[in-house]
Amino acid sequence: MDRRTALAGLSSLSIGAALGSLGDARAAHGSADRTPGKLRKLATEEAFTVPEVAEALRRVVRAGGSNLDLPVLATIYDAPAGTQPRFLSELLDVDERRIADMDRHGVDVQVLSLTAPGVQMFDADTATSLAIVANDRLAEIVRRHPARYAALASFAPQDPARAVKEMERSITHLKFNGFIVNSHTNSEYLDQPRYWPILEAAEALDAPLYIHPRAPSDGMAAPFRDYRLEGAAWGYGVETGTHAVRLMLSGVLDRFPRLKIVLGHMGEALPFWMWRLDFMAAPGARAAGRTNQLKPSEYFQRNFTITTSGVEDPLALRYCIDKIGADSIMWAIDYPYQPTAPAVSFIESAPMSEADRDRIAYKNAERIFRVTARA
Amino acid sequence: MDRRTALAGLSSLSIGAALGSLGDARAAHGSADRTPGKLRKLATEEAFTVPEVAEALRRVVRAGGSNLDLPVLATIYDAPAGTQPRFLSELLDVDERRIADMDRHGVDVQVLSLTAPGVQMFDADTATSLAIVANDRLAEIVRRHPARYAALASFAPQDPARAVKEMERSITHLKFNGFIVNSHTNSEYLDQPRYWPILEAAEALDAPLYIHPRAPSDGMAAPFRDYRLEGAAWGYGVETGTHAVRLMLSGVLDRFPRLKIVLGHMGEALPFWMWRLDFMAAPGARAAGRTNQLKPSEYFQRNFTITTSGVEDPLALRYCIDKIGADSIMWAIDYPYQPTAPAVSFIESAPMSEADRDRIAYKNAERIFRVTARA
Repeated sequence: MDRRTALAGLSSLSIGAALGSLGDARAAHGSADRTPGKLRKLATEEAFTVPEVAEALRRVVRAGGSNLDLPVLATIYDAPAGTQPRFLSELLDVDERRIADMDRHGVDVQVLSLTAPGVQMFDADTATSLAIVANDRLAEIVRRHPARYAALASFAPQDPARAVKEMERSITHLKFNGFIVNSHTNSEYLDQPRYWPILEAAEALDAPLYIHPRAPSDGMAAPFRDYRLEGAAWGYGVETGTHAVRLMLSGVLDRFPRLKIVLGHMGEALPFWMWRLDFMAAPGARAAGRTNQLKPSEYFQRNFTITTSGVEDPLALRYCIDKIGADSIMWAIDYPYQPTAPAVSFIESAPMSEADRDRIAYKNAERIFRVTARA
Repeated sequence: MDRRTALAGLSSLSIGAALGSLGDARAAHGSADRTPGKLRKLATEEAFTVPEVAEALRRVVRAGGSNLDLPVLATIYDAPAGTQPRFLSELLDVDERRIADMDRHGVDVQVLSLTAPGVQMFDADTATSLAIVANDRLAEIVRRHPARYAALASFAPQDPARAVKEMERSITHLKFNGFIVNSHTNSEYLDQPRYWPILEAAEALDAPLYIHPRAPSDGMAAPFRDYRLEGAAWGYGVETGTHAVRLMLSGVLDRFPRLKIVLGHMGEALPFWMWRLDFMAAPGARAAGRTNQLKPSEYFQRNFTITTSGVEDPLALRYCIDKIGADSIMWAIDYPYQPTAPAVSFIESAPMSEADRDRIAYKNAERIFRVTARA
């Protein structure tokens, strides 16, 4: 693994600049020669599934409809006869190839979560039951490999009261490290009062809520139905970023000030938008009627942490370190959707101080997901 | 005007980093003491209107409907009796307060364009007629102040054939500097074949097409109807960024390879998303069926230029310079929607080499909009 791999996504124009910054960062911080493999690495957005959920998703795909997650789900859970289902065997495996991949690349811990869209496309009863099944199975996986895995709990937002029960069980009984939710549920968002018990529970249990992408909700889907725009290239980020902005501008974070939210994909571009968000959406800003207590950047600093999943760009990481601080950033691979090797090369070679590298590679994840105490 | 104003949008955590970079940049490039006011400044996204369009927009507002641009338009064109219409007198003025504001802050040239949503909410006949009226009026304005204004032409996408006629007239007869379009028209996007004559004309006339924001189109409006999410804080960027990604991933830029597109607002965050766009949407990338000839970053480098309108963040500008190069960035104020003083302070004090500052403040705009030849 060399530096070129980590920089492969940069345009030729910017490689020189990135290498220049690398030189600066090393000169400034005096540490250049970390042996690859010695950096402890906790990967924080790593996907798995269980056969019961895979089978239920196959039924969802076969039922059809206009939901924009269906095209991708079809390629994973209902691949045409004779074709290889994408990612499915990797998602189902936790004991063999996954750990071999971690060992090969020096990944110490994966924080596992049920892959998107989780249980959020099922009816409320099925979703509630399958969240329990998936969490029980995940607890067994962590018991088998306590030093290699941590766990984010699934829940069914379709039934907030039962979701809260499962959230409590997963933290107090199963000793999980946080929660995962896949953006909208039936085109509704967590700022809507019906979902406030979920936010309240996450805050009360003092466990972070990872808002993972899914395709744009029905009410914003139309322009994303062409050219595969609905997926990871564009729609996921628009959907999840919009969800996060709703949480900031709704004022719901004034009600749950200690809620910890995690966003992947370098914060779904919110750090890049922060100046404009503040200018246009601060309390008392020119758009009248803003009653939120804080500016968007203040909510972001207080309530949000981001991960690097799917954005292995040294310049974007540099921007985020300077904008929101290295304490608010965690490394991720997005296994098995992204290859492990370049994600590892990225965190091992991207220009930053070695203190920041330790924070982003593992220390922040240990603190925020309380991983050390369990392993 | 001091450095603090330009940095006001940064969180306290990042001010130190920005000032640190400032020191580095000055040390590296050896030029620190530019006298404020000596930097030539061409502002490239500056709005005006004419009474006929304002009156027609007032009728649109009064006709009502669910279009998401209506809430903001109401505050400008149909303010309740006894309240001050927002921005309207500034939009209508080009001879007095505007030039005084430019003189006060050392702005040499404003590139004027009919303010959003232009003529795109009118029926095709009205839109076509009002585009001609607005362009004729704008030509008179430039004739009155040839050294102070340049001009982007309006056209009515509702009738592509007549739009092309007006595009030709505005370049060959009125000697305008480019075109402006306000994202979607009746919830349709320029990658759709019905609009290809417009792209073809812009390419053939060798004049840039500025894609300015408006609120999200009807098919993606639902999640933006709360908390004023539809506007400049969030929805404008999502709408316009989505439009630009459609142009890249549709393959239409393979057909019009010399088309020049301008995006405001620091490129509507596309530079920040570029690594992920490339990974997920490159030709032959894992999402099957990508037949585009180039990677998104290659289209962006070839076909797009960005402006700084509404994002006066030294870190975001630094990121963009490193990512896409200073030759692809132009300064803007977004007059009268953003105040001039901090926009000027931003371009005068943001950390960059003085060569890059000259490029971004005026040289790129002179080249891309061919301003020098006319003034």
